[in-house]
Amino acid sequence: MDKILRQALLYDFYGELLTEHQKSIYEDFVLNDYSLSEIGEDRKISRQGVYDIIKRCDKLLNGYEEKLHLVQKFLMAKEQVAKIHELASEILKAEGAPDEATEYLRQIENISNGILEEM
Amino acid sequence: MDKILRQALLYDFYGELLTEHQKSIYEDFVLNDYSLSEIGEDRKISRQGVYDIIKRCDKLLNGYEEKLHLVQKFLMAKEQVAKIHELASEILKAEGAPDEATEYLRQIENISNGILEEM
Repeated sequence: MDKILRQALLYDFYGELLTEHQKSIYEDFVLNDYSLSEIGEDRKISRQGVYDIIKRCDKLLNGYEEKLHLVQKFLMAKEQVAKIHELASEILKAEGAPDEATEYLRQIENISNGILEEM
Repeated sequence: MDKILRQALLYDFYGELLTEHQKSIYEDFVLNDYSLSEIGEDRKISRQGVYDIIKRCDKLLNGYEEKLHLVQKFLMAKEQVAKIHELASEILKAEGAPDEATEYLRQIENISNGILEEM
């Protein structure tokens, strides 16, 4: 997985366990795509200082994932729900699905879609 | 939700963030159903001491949930996957499902069942 995407995912799951200061800097770097220098200028800290804080956040977030594995679990569940969504859509696309099943299949499509949007 | 069930769920999600000592005592109380006195005897700590550790663990685990809401998210997703499983089973039970759909529906049943077992 792309490093920034992984950082964003870890932040999405465990970010609330960081301090406000850490969150603000990590967000600017990972989500808002600012450079170390830009982040440092705004806050009057050195580029190296910003770098150290981001490394520290990476370490904390990865530590939570190593202990809890919740990102991994969510990604696996998400993949499986996507498969369900795909299967339901395939059946609906095929001819000959009986009317009583169609309504249920649309519900399966909607529910799986809802889960994917929340995740 | 039943208090012990909630404690067990919170422990299942965030237990790895407790110390080994806290985990061992919390497990004996919540999962193994030992009394405060029994837990204290084994470890040569007072009943009150055990009680304080359990309260401390409750507070930590609830604090993680207040920040991360992962138990809540998982429970909601689980409920929705259970609904998908039920719908797929209903269609399969009904007469007239065409053969090409049956295979896909069985896959939906299996995948949703797999997700529920993992969660």
